[in-house]
Amino acid sequence: MRKVSIVGIGQVPVKKQYEERMRTIAKIAVKEAMEEAGVAKVDALFAGNMLADELQGQKHLASLIADEVGLDLIEAMQVRAATATGAAALRMAYLAVASGEADSAIAVGVEKMSGGLATPALAKALDARYEVPSGDTLISKNADLMRMYIDKYNMPADGLVNFSINAHKNGVTNPNALFKKAIDRETVLNSKVISHPIRLFDCSPVCDGAAAVLLVPTEEARAYHESPVHIMASSVSSDRFRVADRPEPLLLRAARMSAVQAFRRANVNRKDVDFYEVHDAFSIMACLLLEAAGFARQGEGWRMAAENKIGLDGELPLATMGGLKARGHPIGATALYQTCEIVQQLTGRAGPNQLKNPRIAMLQSVGGAASTVLTHIFGI
Amino acid sequence: MRKVSIVGIGQVPVKKQYEERMRTIAKIAVKEAMEEAGVAKVDALFAGNMLADELQGQKHLASLIADEVGLDLIEAMQVRAATATGAAALRMAYLAVASGEADSAIAVGVEKMSGGLATPALAKALDARYEVPSGDTLISKNADLMRMYIDKYNMPADGLVNFSINAHKNGVTNPNALFKKAIDRETVLNSKVISHPIRLFDCSPVCDGAAAVLLVPTEEARAYHESPVHIMASSVSSDRFRVADRPEPLLLRAARMSAVQAFRRANVNRKDVDFYEVHDAFSIMACLLLEAAGFARQGEGWRMAAENKIGLDGELPLATMGGLKARGHPIGATALYQTCEIVQQLTGRAGPNQLKNPRIAMLQSVGGAASTVLTHIFGI
Repeated sequence: MRKVSIVGIGQVPVKKQYEERMRTIAKIAVKEAMEEAGVAKVDALFAGNMLADELQGQKHLASLIADEVGLDLIEAMQVRAATATGAAALRMAYLAVASGEADSAIAVGVEKMSGGLATPALAKALDARYEVPSGDTLISKNADLMRMYIDKYNMPADGLVNFSINAHKNGVTNPNALFKKAIDRETVLNSKVISHPIRLFDCSPVCDGAAAVLLVPTEEARAYHESPVHIMASSVSSDRFRVADRPEPLLLRAARMSAVQAFRRANVNRKDVDFYEVHDAFSIMACLLLEAAGFARQGEGWRMAAENKIGLDGELPLATMGGLKARGHPIGATALYQTCEIVQQLTGRAGPNQLKNPRIAMLQSVGGAASTVLTHIFGI
Repeated sequence: MRKVSIVGIGQVPVKKQYEERMRTIAKIAVKEAMEEAGVAKVDALFAGNMLADELQGQKHLASLIADEVGLDLIEAMQVRAATATGAAALRMAYLAVASGEADSAIAVGVEKMSGGLATPALAKALDARYEVPSGDTLISKNADLMRMYIDKYNMPADGLVNFSINAHKNGVTNPNALFKKAIDRETVLNSKVISHPIRLFDCSPVCDGAAAVLLVPTEEARAYHESPVHIMASSVSSDRFRVADRPEPLLLRAARMSAVQAFRRANVNRKDVDFYEVHDAFSIMACLLLEAAGFARQGEGWRMAAENKIGLDGELPLATMGGLKARGHPIGATALYQTCEIVQQLTGRAGPNQLKNPRIAMLQSVGGAASTVLTHIFGI
């Protein structure tokens, strides 16, 4: 199996609504990634998108984007893992290059959530027969988990607020972030209840965006870029589909298993991870992921935030460019934004958000109520 | 890159409508494939499905199926290439095993087209901005191609009828086929016009089904099965997305390019192919694919049918178990049914439809109006 590296990244600023079409913003991201690597053609393009079936009436996206970019006669397929879809596209591009079937592959994610009603479309990440009919949405599922967590661990009411405060603080200086506004404790705690106990400022926003990365074999990476970033590991795991069927719902087993596999494949451990791009779609999810990935003990993930260990100069920086909460969470694009941001950090291009000499980064991406979780580890 | 072989297949009979749920028929197919190989667990599962977003309200399918099968903590992702989706799942499972990331992988396709209005959902394989709004569907696109073909090559009105007659004849003795009824020339020519000049009996049916195959590294295949079938090549290519943008619409460039790549990767040529499972969603598509893949000259694909070269004892048997036309075309499952049937043929298990000692088979799978085409070559 060949090692794989990233030699180009592309991102459009996340916006509440793009007037431009889905294919156009996808093209901008892909072109930017290709230009950075100095290539005019790639062997393969894997597209990540979750909602276009309903919101744009488009089910055939990879060859559409390839055509729009001017890439003719290439491998083009679409990949999905619900809300972890961007990471699924990254993994497929990784497999295509690692296997030797492609010598260069684009992973591109795009989502225009402004095209219609996002919440019911997103709820289709849950069980259409046993969860959705009773009113469940991704928000209500996360609210269930948050209530269980509060009851089991006696977390104080403001236990999670620092996840949002940190993300917003980091978003201020990311030119691609949707929200460039710092918030304080009161902003979070006084915000509207969306699904008890989740408040507005515990949630990532509905938004539009596109991001892309270009992968090549590591042995050829320096021919494309002076500072390639290596994908040290890529892994996926599944869990019981419905939260109700899980023996211990507060332990995200797919996150744990994919993290364990990724650590093994990368031959590193959690202490080697300099920063962690977490799937903070909801604050409670960031907390549970810290525990599942082994960065905190069960019941203590929230303390990482409460004790200020997650800032840019903290023990384990999270959401260093604003996270899903402030940069935004245009679903199919999200993990590719995070991958771009990890590349920016590892190559010293994160501007005011730059960490001090980070060498290893971890990314986790959650599909639905964490029945699918992908873990990627990156290094220089 | 590791070589990859098939050591288990599973198919449920194609039906007009299953009362059972989508996950249930998928489970039956997966279990059958696993039982044939004698395994209780696999490393990965790739699911192919095109229409569940709208027809079943389900967007998160791979970990759902894995859970239903009782596969816990495995890699699970969904793959798409519009109407070629089943082949995309096969290719992803192939890449996972070929790369070394998985030592066993299920590719499963499932579709319940009976869950709602299939035609408008299928039309989303076309361009949502420039084709669908003016009333285009997959049927009308194929009708356009058929009209162009008739005008350019002066094909007689009954030029294509043998594609349907052959498929129906072969379907009679396939226990998994939807239609087990032979038809004649008059049945086709007197059938209702659906979109001129396409008649009802030029079209594959709307139906439900599920099929699965289990892949392992070739070097280990005999530990699982006494007669493994090898995937000699897997490839994908794209074309200009809209037919209107193609320099020569009657030449399916994605089919040609992916065939050329597949022949090269398998180190065989078209003369080595003993039978060809064609994407006969519409008769004209079978004709165009024969030409694109190099089995007939341009303008002469229909003659292969008209001159009876496509029967079980013909020069190039097509649709040996009924094809999309008679076995049925439950979209996301189709290419996996075809893969199962190829395995049946290559291992002497095709019953009354058995070819005489076939050794090499080719499969092509068409996404949308052939903007994405996958080619797979199999051998023993």
